[in-house]
Amino acid sequence: MITKKIYLDNNATTALDPRVLRAMLLELEGAPSNPSSIHTYGQRAKQLLYKARKNISTFFNVNPDELIFTSGGTESVNTAIHGLMHSHSTGHIISTSIDHSCVFQTLTLLQKQGYDLTFLEVGLKGAPELSQIENAIRPDTKLIALSIANSETGVMIDLEPIAALCLERKIPLVLDGVAILGKEIFSIPKGVSAMCFSAHKIHGPKGTGLLFLRSNAKFSPLILGGPQENNRRAGTENLAGILGFEEAVAILKETQESYIPKIRKLRDYFEKTLQGIFPHIIINGEGPRVCNISNLSFLHVNGENLLIQLDRNGIMASHGSACSSGSIEPSRILLNMGIPRKQAKGAVRFSFSRLTSQEEVDTCIEVLRTLIPKLTME
Amino acid sequence: MITKKIYLDNNATTALDPRVLRAMLLELEGAPSNPSSIHTYGQRAKQLLYKARKNISTFFNVNPDELIFTSGGTESVNTAIHGLMHSHSTGHIISTSIDHSCVFQTLTLLQKQGYDLTFLEVGLKGAPELSQIENAIRPDTKLIALSIANSETGVMIDLEPIAALCLERKIPLVLDGVAILGKEIFSIPKGVSAMCFSAHKIHGPKGTGLLFLRSNAKFSPLILGGPQENNRRAGTENLAGILGFEEAVAILKETQESYIPKIRKLRDYFEKTLQGIFPHIIINGEGPRVCNISNLSFLHVNGENLLIQLDRNGIMASHGSACSSGSIEPSRILLNMGIPRKQAKGAVRFSFSRLTSQEEVDTCIEVLRTLIPKLTME
Repeated sequence: MITKKIYLDNNATTALDPRVLRAMLLELEGAPSNPSSIHTYGQRAKQLLYKARKNISTFFNVNPDELIFTSGGTESVNTAIHGLMHSHSTGHIISTSIDHSCVFQTLTLLQKQGYDLTFLEVGLKGAPELSQIENAIRPDTKLIALSIANSETGVMIDLEPIAALCLERKIPLVLDGVAILGKEIFSIPKGVSAMCFSAHKIHGPKGTGLLFLRSNAKFSPLILGGPQENNRRAGTENLAGILGFEEAVAILKETQESYIPKIRKLRDYFEKTLQGIFPHIIINGEGPRVCNISNLSFLHVNGENLLIQLDRNGIMASHGSACSSGSIEPSRILLNMGIPRKQAKGAVRFSFSRLTSQEEVDTCIEVLRTLIPKLTME
Repeated sequence: MITKKIYLDNNATTALDPRVLRAMLLELEGAPSNPSSIHTYGQRAKQLLYKARKNISTFFNVNPDELIFTSGGTESVNTAIHGLMHSHSTGHIISTSIDHSCVFQTLTLLQKQGYDLTFLEVGLKGAPELSQIENAIRPDTKLIALSIANSETGVMIDLEPIAALCLERKIPLVLDGVAILGKEIFSIPKGVSAMCFSAHKIHGPKGTGLLFLRSNAKFSPLILGGPQENNRRAGTENLAGILGFEEAVAILKETQESYIPKIRKLRDYFEKTLQGIFPHIIINGEGPRVCNISNLSFLHVNGENLLIQLDRNGIMASHGSACSSGSIEPSRILLNMGIPRKQAKGAVRFSFSRLTSQEEVDTCIEVLRTLIPKLTME
């Protein structure tokens, strides 16, 4: 069956915006350009890099030298955690059991190396309470690492009070901001030491990430070599990727205020309509969510079968983070929220973007209306 | 003055080949594609990734699962050194004082962490002798890290016997292969545990690197998170970059046998002609060199002034690795070879590519013929 494809997996990756591609082509079709070279081509590249850093820093309302370009969200998170823990050989770290694998695996390694870890249990809400974090803090707590929005459920932490707590207690706070950028309007509070972003989740290119690192943070780089990124991330800059990121952020700046409510309205309509059709449907993650994620469990339906049937009908969704899919296990994140195994196995994540249309959502609802009864097992 | 630009800084970066860009556009203009997603778009992305890995592995005559895609040569080197040293908390490492900053800085950090380092002095030849390496080996030597070709002089190590020595002594050998790929035809000998490459030095995109890691090597990843690259490098793959790398390697495969001798002939002609005009010119690096580098010192000429004047005449060269330029200090690599400070300060690196023409080389010679006498200070 040939149908127009409907892409509802925008938390895995997004379609590159044609304007972003045009910005990248400026570099890809241009003269050879290494921003470290001192000749004309090098200087031109350096200016483009400078401008990109400046424009992105204006969007985030931070200093340009507080931004480090990386190869992606995962590298940013690894860099932030290692970089801020580098000066401590022991100590206590607080995170949750539902963070993205790049946070979770990096911290698990530190745990093996002798650091003391508290992975907070967040329950069905899907995000830690301020009081939980406060209660977990010890005199030797050296770092708190959290996702602002969970990549699978979209549930957000209460950013401002958590940042204020970290500021008061003088504990560096590292935030994975990948799933919130372009999905909610936020600013980076004073108590945040590092925040991590990825270009390809906002219609920018894969292979480009960003690390906000507050200027007073005690930091050691993860990747050593040349003096690029102010001696904080070595290696020739991926200039085309950075120019693409700059353009993707410029588009956010211009359009997010108008499209975020539009996405939320579509997502809410999607959920309400489905709840009307299937009264036993469960929305995974009870806390406040970013606008674009709908993580649903259809009771007595195997999520993997559903995904396959959706795909055959031209609809693409996922059963969790792309970074842990391929596995037939139910999502670690949902299980660690205390969601029963059967419900977790039935979960499907629909993630919308500003390109998602009412028509696509309606088609998806109609396909689900036909599929779910066929796939329901007693 | 407006002149057609002549780019002789191909060891800093190269012009993207239009065929490489076309290969990248397949992905950049295509549907959103994360190779970890299980739906149609994801599967298509996974197949493209599989094909790229397969084709590149055929070129290097290694197993596809021995290749790890990274964000560049620097990340590859950092990953290889940390990854192979991870299981040792102490031990001895052998390298040279003339390796690229990504090798040198990474090892200097390990030295600070308590590892014992021997940085071999290589002298005016510009590469370590086999006997030096052999004599430096101790019972606790855990790693040998070298560049196959030096990025500033182009001087090569004697790869085969060094690899055979490492195999015999069972010491992991990490090689920075960035400056040799596409400049000489080589194969990866059995004694090599890891070899590092960069796409943007072979007319591929910036932001894409490769790490060959022998399947029996004991290794821990540097960047943790999702299971990408067989659990050895987390983060969504830069698929466009990887497709570009694949095409750049395909072009090498098809053309390097014919263009390498052509580049060497041009480079040798350049040097011989200049030696005829300026009898006191010195070629830095006395050992056998890759085909495309000419690192020259013009006596009583300041290299930086010369570079500026060359640039004004439309000719772009450098005074060392782009990863350490911007500094007005003479090259660490040349100084560590024992080259006098004055001669090192006079050094300019001309690096050619397969796009360099006879006409460009002749123009460069004519410009130097005019400039050098004007810039000569007594």
